[in-house]
Amino acid sequence: MREVAVIGIGMNRWGELWEKSHRQIWTEAALEAIKDAGVDRIDAMYVGCMSGGLFMGQEHLGALLAEQLGMGPIPGTRVESACASGGLAFRQAYLAVASGAHDLVLASGLEKMTDVDGGAATYALSTAADQEYECYQGITFPGLYAMMARVHMHRYGTTRRQLAEVAVKNHLHGSMNPLAQFPMKVTAEQVMESVLVADPLRILDCSPITDGAAAVVLAPVELARKITKGPIIRVAASAHATDTIALHDREDLAWIASTATAAAAAYKQAGIGPQDLSFCEVHDCFTIAEIMVIEALGLCDRGKGGLAAESGLTALGGKIPVNASGGLKSKGHPVGATGIAQVREAVVQLRGAAGDRQVKNARLGLTQNMGGTGASTVIHIFDRA
Amino acid sequence: MREVAVIGIGMNRWGELWEKSHRQIWTEAALEAIKDAGVDRIDAMYVGCMSGGLFMGQEHLGALLAEQLGMGPIPGTRVESACASGGLAFRQAYLAVASGAHDLVLASGLEKMTDVDGGAATYALSTAADQEYECYQGITFPGLYAMMARVHMHRYGTTRRQLAEVAVKNHLHGSMNPLAQFPMKVTAEQVMESVLVADPLRILDCSPITDGAAAVVLAPVELARKITKGPIIRVAASAHATDTIALHDREDLAWIASTATAAAAAYKQAGIGPQDLSFCEVHDCFTIAEIMVIEALGLCDRGKGGLAAESGLTALGGKIPVNASGGLKSKGHPVGATGIAQVREAVVQLRGAAGDRQVKNARLGLTQNMGGTGASTVIHIFDRA
Repeated sequence: MREVAVIGIGMNRWGELWEKSHRQIWTEAALEAIKDAGVDRIDAMYVGCMSGGLFMGQEHLGALLAEQLGMGPIPGTRVESACASGGLAFRQAYLAVASGAHDLVLASGLEKMTDVDGGAATYALSTAADQEYECYQGITFPGLYAMMARVHMHRYGTTRRQLAEVAVKNHLHGSMNPLAQFPMKVTAEQVMESVLVADPLRILDCSPITDGAAAVVLAPVELARKITKGPIIRVAASAHATDTIALHDREDLAWIASTATAAAAAYKQAGIGPQDLSFCEVHDCFTIAEIMVIEALGLCDRGKGGLAAESGLTALGGKIPVNASGGLKSKGHPVGATGIAQVREAVVQLRGAAGDRQVKNARLGLTQNMGGTGASTVIHIFDRA
Repeated sequence: MREVAVIGIGMNRWGELWEKSHRQIWTEAALEAIKDAGVDRIDAMYVGCMSGGLFMGQEHLGALLAEQLGMGPIPGTRVESACASGGLAFRQAYLAVASGAHDLVLASGLEKMTDVDGGAATYALSTAADQEYECYQGITFPGLYAMMARVHMHRYGTTRRQLAEVAVKNHLHGSMNPLAQFPMKVTAEQVMESVLVADPLRILDCSPITDGAAAVVLAPVELARKITKGPIIRVAASAHATDTIALHDREDLAWIASTATAAAAAYKQAGIGPQDLSFCEVHDCFTIAEIMVIEALGLCDRGKGGLAAESGLTALGGKIPVNASGGLKSKGHPVGATGIAQVREAVVQLRGAAGDRQVKNARLGLTQNMGGTGASTVIHIFDRA
C-alpha cells in the first residue's frame, strides 16, 4: 500500500445556515480544500453523509456533488456510518489512494440538519440506533447516552460536575475557533443548571444540531512532496471497528469496545502508543462520550475519564489536549461532516497553524469518530512525514 | 494493486417479503455467500443500500449487519449511490482487497422497499433525482425516463413495440431464474396494453418495488487459488463515472454519458472491447433504460438500441445476451441489492451453473449498474482467471 498524505483542507463556519443550500455549503468547503492543496483537479471524491434522505430528501450525493464541483464525470461516492460517516469517507478515500486506484482524492462530509423541525431531526438521528429494538421503545440518543452516564457514575463515582467540566473545557477551546457554531464560554454551574434533557444529561452536555461541511484532499506522499510547500502531513494509521448496535447487547454499558478495538489496530499500524500522542480530536457528542472515549483510547485508566477534564489533563496546556477545536460540543455536529472536520483540525495543528488554540510541539495527532452509541468507530493517526 | 476474485455468492428469492425483517433477508444472502466461498470468516464487509432511512427508518447498516452476521468487530461500511449502491459497494470492496487492506471481504446489497406504501416508496426513490430542481416540480422516475424515451423515439424512430420487446425478453429470461420476483412470461401486446404510468411507459415497462438482498465474497486471486475448487472468477475491470444529476443539464437526453465514460475505462483496464463480451447484465429499471445502456456500452450503434431486443441480438442464444437473469424487470429491483445480484449472475454464468438460462461459452461478462437517470454508473468486467 502506498503512503498517503493530506495536502489540503477546507471548512466553513458552522451553524444554522438557512440561507444556504447543501450544495453551497459543501462546495465552499471543497473548493477551499482544493485551493489549499494547490491542485487544479481531483481524480475522485468521497462524501460522508448520515441521512440525506431524512434531512434533505436528497440521496445520491456522490454524483450530485461531483457535478456541483464542476468535476464530473469523476467517481463520487457517498459513505454512511451514522455520525462516523465523515471518518469512514476519509478511510475509503485513504484506501483509494493507498491502493493506487486514484492519486488526488477529495474526502468530504456534509449534513444539513436544521431545515427540518427538532422532532424530525431527533427521529433522523435515531436511525443510527437499532430501530427495531431501541427506537420502537421510544428511546433516542440523549436517553441512550444518559443510561451510559448513569452506569459510569454508579460504578466509577463519576460526578455531575465532571461531566460539566468536559463542556467547560470544550467551549473554552471552541472560543478560540473562528469556525465554531457555539464559541461562547460556559461555566460548570451554567452546564449543571441548564435545561434537563435526559437525566443526568442537560442541554449543555449535548452537542448541537448543525448545518456544515468540511473537506480535505489526499495524495500519495510521493506526489505530496512535489506539490506541497509546507510540512507533509502523513496518514500514519487508519482503523475501523464495529460493536453491537443496540446498547442492551453490550457486555459493558460503560465501555466503548469499538473504540478500544480500533485504537489497538491504529496504534499497532502507527507503531506508537497513546503516550506518544500530542493531541486528540474525539467524538464528544455528549460530555459522557468524551469521558468514555478517552478511557478506550488509553489516555487515562478505565473509570478515570471523569477526572481528566476536571484535573486539566485534557485541556490545552495539559498532558494530552483533547478537542482543541472545541469538539462537537462547541464547534457543532453536522453529523456527516464531523469526522472530516476532526481530520482538518489535526492537519491545522500539525501545520502549527491553529493560532490561540495551538497545541505546543504538535507532532502526532489522533482523530476518533463514532457512530451511534459506539456501534462503529473510525480512528486515524497523523504525523509529519 | 492485487488481482481480485469473487469466490462466493448468495441471494434469496426476491419479492414482497413482509414476513421477514431486513436483518433476516440480508443474513440469508450473506451466510450463503460465505458458505459458498468455503471460508469461516470475513475480514470486512460493505453493504450497498439506497435509503435505509426512508424505507426502514434504519441507517448505520454497516455496523448493524456486521453484528447480525456475528462477525463484529469487523469493519462494516455502507455505500450509497441511489440504484447503483450495490455496484458501488462492490467497487469499494474490490479496492479494499486490491489495496492489501483486507483479504476476505463481503460485498452485499440490501433494500426493503415494501414496508412503506407506494407513495412513500416513490418519494424515497425520487431522492435519487435532483430534489431542488426536479422533484420540486413533481417529477418522479417514471416521468424522467418517459421523457428520455420520447426523445429516443422522436430522434431514432424507436417504436412502442421495441420498448415492449425488452420486457418480453427479460421476462422470458426471468422465467428460467428461480429467484426472480416476477418470473411470468409476457407478450408484447400485454406490455403495450398494460396500465399507463408515464406516457409512453406502461406498468410492464417498469421494474418493480422489491425486498431483497444479495452478497458475494471477494479475495485476492492468489488466495482464491488456494481456497476455490472450481474456476477462479476474476475482476478484470472496475470503473465508476458520474454525470449531471438533473436530466435538464445533459447535453443529450437520449444518451447515458456516465455509462459510456465508465465503459471506456473498464474496456481499457480489461484490455478488451464490447465485441469480446459473452454476456452483459445491465440496469433495465425501465425498458428504455436497457435500450440506451446497450448503446452506451457499444453493443450496438447509437440510436439502434431499439432494434436489439426485437431482432434477438440481446436474447439468450443471440450474439450478446443481455440480462439472462431476467434483469431488474423480471428478477426485481431492491435498489441497493441490484448491483450485487448482477455480479452474482456474472459469476453463475462464468461458472457454467446457470441451468436453463446458461449463456453458451461464457468467458467474459460485464455488469452495468446505474443510479438515477444515469447520474452515476458502475461497471465491472469478469473473466475466468
